Amino acid sequence: MPSPTSPLRRVAILAVGQELLGTDRLDTNSLWITERLEEWGLLLHEKQVCGDDQADIEDRLADLLARHDLVLVTGGLGPTADDRTKESAAALLGRGLIRDEAIVASLKERFRRRGYEMPEINLKQADLVEGAVVLRNSRGTAPGFLIEAGEKVLILMPGVPVEMQSMMVEEVRPRLAPRVPSDGIVRRTVRVASLPESAVEAKVKPVYQKWPGVTFTILAAPGDIVLRFTAPGPASSAMVLLDSIERDFRESIGDAVYGRDDDSLESVVVGLLRSRGESLAAAESCSGGLLSKRITDVPGASRVFLGSLITYSNESKVRDATVPAEELEAHGAVSREVALSLARGARARFGSTYALSVTGIAGPDGGSDQKPVGTVHIALASPRGERHIEFSLPSDRAMIRSYSATIALDLLRKELLRLDLSRERPDRSGQEGM
Amino acid sequence: MPSPTSPLRRVAILAVGQELLGTDRLDTNSLWITERLEEWGLLLHEKQVCGDDQADIEDRLADLLARHDLVLVTGGLGPTADDRTKESAAALLGRGLIRDEAIVASLKERFRRRGYEMPEINLKQADLVEGAVVLRNSRGTAPGFLIEAGEKVLILMPGVPVEMQSMMVEEVRPRLAPRVPSDGIVRRTVRVASLPESAVEAKVKPVYQKWPGVTFTILAAPGDIVLRFTAPGPASSAMVLLDSIERDFRESIGDAVYGRDDDSLESVVVGLLRSRGESLAAAESCSGGLLSKRITDVPGASRVFLGSLITYSNESKVRDATVPAEELEAHGAVSREVALSLARGARARFGSTYALSVTGIAGPDGGSDQKPVGTVHIALASPRGERHIEFSLPSDRAMIRSYSATIALDLLRKELLRLDLSRERPDRSGQEGM
Repeated sequence: MPSPTSPLRRVAILAVGQELLGTDRLDTNSLWITERLEEWGLLLHEKQVCGDDQADIEDRLADLLARHDLVLVTGGLGPTADDRTKESAAALLGRGLIRDEAIVASLKERFRRRGYEMPEINLKQADLVEGAVVLRNSRGTAPGFLIEAGEKVLILMPGVPVEMQSMMVEEVRPRLAPRVPSDGIVRRTVRVASLPESAVEAKVKPVYQKWPGVTFTILAAPGDIVLRFTAPGPASSAMVLLDSIERDFRESIGDAVYGRDDDSLESVVVGLLRSRGESLAAAESCSGGLLSKRITDVPGASRVFLGSLITYSNESKVRDATVPAEELEAHGAVSREVALSLARGARARFGSTYALSVTGIAGPDGGSDQKPVGTVHIALASPRGERHIEFSLPSDRAMIRSYSATIALDLLRKELLRLDLSRERPDRSGQEGM
Repeated sequence: MPSPTSPLRRVAILAVGQELLGTDRLDTNSLWITERLEEWGLLLHEKQVCGDDQADIEDRLADLLARHDLVLVTGGLGPTADDRTKESAAALLGRGLIRDEAIVASLKERFRRRGYEMPEINLKQADLVEGAVVLRNSRGTAPGFLIEAGEKVLILMPGVPVEMQSMMVEEVRPRLAPRVPSDGIVRRTVRVASLPESAVEAKVKPVYQKWPGVTFTILAAPGDIVLRFTAPGPASSAMVLLDSIERDFRESIGDAVYGRDDDSLESVVVGLLRSRGESLAAAESCSGGLLSKRITDVPGASRVFLGSLITYSNESKVRDATVPAEELEAHGAVSREVALSLARGARARFGSTYALSVTGIAGPDGGSDQKPVGTVHIALASPRGERHIEFSLPSDRAMIRSYSATIALDLLRKELLRLDLSRERPDRSGQEGM
């Protein structure tokens, strides 16, 4: 009977292992596998994780094979009594397990070379699934299996990442190649700052509707939204399509789009400053170093970032950032006035082109009726004047701090961007209020 | 009809979201949820991940509810067209969706406070599942749902971690409590700083062997190791057992054990400083704000943390932290001398009891033969003198920075701990070198 040749369109991953149902290990293998699948032109449809119980594994395999063309399984191929993946697949598909004496010999040889005698328990690894293609494990002792069940393909691989990875590349890829749909996929990401998810959604809806064949997803963190879209291949034509879609997104969202693919707000800001030969400093109160940390996460940040004052006490605001004491008294540390003075003070102290400041109430304590937890003032001092933003985000400490740093970075980004635009278009009128 | 009271024994998690089927995001929510479930006495049996398609979600919910007593779903409750979890559950269970005008009003108010008008699309978040218990979202706009379907319980929560987490603690926990099996499990975590995994592993091996019925796991990040152990309930007797094991761990590992359960190095350090009425400042170079950020992550840090200098340029080291220019010239910015001067300078400027400093080469550039990437000097200035640590960690930028902050925090923790010990035992001799 010839092998089936129908394209594999629905793909699922099953990770087997009790340890993946605990509190500190995730099935990270699936990310690596998904990346390879996407490179090869296959799109993942579903993932599952189950424990080591044979009844559970059989049940999961049955469920997944009923609904997918290709099911990739990792884990449970080792020598211990816990390892039941091969047994489960064989039982489900009515296949036997046959001991392979050549594998027994090579296992023994492998142990001998490492100076051990092979434990009896390892014999299990020489048992092959009847009618399956054996996938060689160049990094370990457990072979993998490719089992064709009608039009469906079931692949069993070890859970050890390095063993699974070489098996995928060396053994799985060439065998799947003939059944990869010829219309693969290509993916792109566009990143948006400082807008709420629903506002972005409203702006991009017409773009979704314009491109019905394309898969769009939107992923939101406060102040930072990721639009991802995937087009069917071949790559060259898909790229042209993705370029058009990205152009549409940029047109409908405007300069809230800060980057694509692996960009971050901080990498974009550091890049803009570098290209302009300008420098940055900061004065942080409630963000407590988070803004500086994000900027200095970027390799090469030292070429543009001169330093920061973490003025976590009023004394430090006055002494280090030269905030007037009477201003603190009159308006409080969380105020427009103090935010502007902090930015001004940091800029003067470090002699930087720009300085950002953040002062707010991150909670859980310190809020009042006038200034509830989540009230934050952000300022930017630049050679051309000052900018100020105030917002109130009723959330928890971590979120308020993270959102503050994001909004501060985006305030500077927009300032830098506007400069670049006005350089390109010297006749541009209608400056936004400083 | 009274609510069912049968114990919830089989538990599954479903994460909904196309982005969780890509190449860079895992369902990390499930780890946090599993941790809470285990604390409450519930053991996870299975996990699944599916995309945003309503047919897929309905299919997964049907599959999971058929085989489990409790199904917890995260994601897909947002305002966008992609968000279909609520719709899927309602369709599967034959329930309607009913718009709640009170929620509409509170959504509008929430947007108004942040300075936006509510987009039409957000109305969807005011639609409630017929017959479901509404779970309040104290951190965001999407309510969650607890739906009883016969003896089964289905819980829908947002995918945003902070929203899901507060909903689990505030709303889900009290409602599940009556149905937690009385013979649950109890878990404890012991945290260890500044030791390599293999050293900890060697020290704790005898403890593992002493308690054969207990499940142990070890989870290692550089400088920060987590030992976790689980005993079968009922809680009262399991607690006694866990106390004994914790005692054994502390005896074999010594004062490298910095805390248990939810402690972090920074929360322990802030706690020690608060109890002693002492204060802290910092001067950071290569860590670029990360140390200050970690300290100020702790609620109430402002009572002990006065501020920090992020001296990311040599000029700033001299001007702001009063590092002698000739010292910088003679030894370089990454040196014992400059680390000590930075700590001294920060302590003098902020007038704090203690000051920590970090200076090093985080890479990828800036390394040399004498001082390769990963070379870091850390210093502590205190009323009793100065301490200094140097290490070299051949790793990437993020890891070098994170390890530096950990080692700095642990240096201060040990100093504070020794003081407390010597106060308790005034006859203690053999002071470690300063």
